[in-house]
Amino acid sequence: MSKAEKTRQFIIEKTAPIFNKKGYASTSLSDMTDATGLTKGSIYGNFTDKDEVALACFDHNHKTIRETISNAMALRSSYRDKLRVYVEVYSGNGNFKLVPGGCPILNTAIEAADTHPALKARAAEAIDSWKKKIVTLIEAGKTNKEFKPGTDAEQAALSIIALLEGSIMIGRTVGQPGSIKPLITAVENIINAL
Amino acid sequence: MSKAEKTRQFIIEKTAPIFNKKGYASTSLSDMTDATGLTKGSIYGNFTDKDEVALACFDHNHKTIRETISNAMALRSSYRDKLRVYVEVYSGNGNFKLVPGGCPILNTAIEAADTHPALKARAAEAIDSWKKKIVTLIEAGKTNKEFKPGTDAEQAALSIIALLEGSIMIGRTVGQPGSIKPLITAVENIINAL
Repeated sequence: MSKAEKTRQFIIEKTAPIFNKKGYASTSLSDMTDATGLTKGSIYGNFTDKDEVALACFDHNHKTIRETISNAMALRSSYRDKLRVYVEVYSGNGNFKLVPGGCPILNTAIEAADTHPALKARAAEAIDSWKKKIVTLIEAGKTNKEFKPGTDAEQAALSIIALLEGSIMIGRTVGQPGSIKPLITAVENIINAL
Repeated sequence: MSKAEKTRQFIIEKTAPIFNKKGYASTSLSDMTDATGLTKGSIYGNFTDKDEVALACFDHNHKTIRETISNAMALRSSYRDKLRVYVEVYSGNGNFKLVPGGCPILNTAIEAADTHPALKARAAEAIDSWKKKIVTLIEAGKTNKEFKPGTDAEQAALSIIALLEGSIMIGRTVGQPGSIKPLITAVENIINAL
């Protein structure tokens, strides 16, 4: 990596949690200079504008979650156990953690829907690739005779995503221990019934 | 209503859709003066600060949805048909519409979780009262022998909420017709299985 690439990566790593917690609109240039210890000139010497930082931060947060999940799945042999990785990562009960500020796909989808077409497009791509990944795992489990042949992979995949995102939304808002346990059980029931 | 109360109500009705679409942080005073045709002085003659407008707008949006749902439920006799009102309102396929900008509970929960304790508390209360309302309907259906006695009302209620909010999130982001149909079917399946 060149020095410029290293600085860019440093800025992304330090500001990505702030964008995810505060939202893209509310993250200010002074948040970025505070988090990095860099000057305004240094940040805008590495990125054209705030939008470019925001998009790079979304990609970084999304990649972090994807890698956490892929690495954990690589160590599981059955497709059912691979799918259970999502529950462990999203419930926060396993050895894994989401990025600070909750799920960046959900946060970005909600903030950007009516306000930021480029971020909205990133969130849409992330949802689509997540759904396809789950569908692929379920179809592989069907081919492998691990799952029932009649399983509706599309419906199961979307239900798993909605229940996990719902559990993040409710858990972060209500904040009572145990408040999302029934939702986690609902996802486990879907995976167990495949 | 006094003249001051009418002005307050007018400001709330005109700005509530903007807060729901753009988010609380991004809604500016000039958004409020543009939408109402009032001066800054007139708006802040009726509200202490932007937070007070934001909280009043959340309450207004939340009340609009609650009334839409309650009015429709009052015309249904079975508890299953009452629960189906949620599907009709959230899927946008029925005769009902959510408020502009999607579900204010979801939007506010996501924006406020790390940034705005007062709005976060409002979203938490809204989620809790929504869950209790569904639990009450399911328990009444059990007492009435319409639903199976073994139904886990808490899990069904939270699953319905998560799947509906997930369908709003995915529908508004991905924007392809039919993309959320499997989620709507998943909610219908839960209601049919009660």
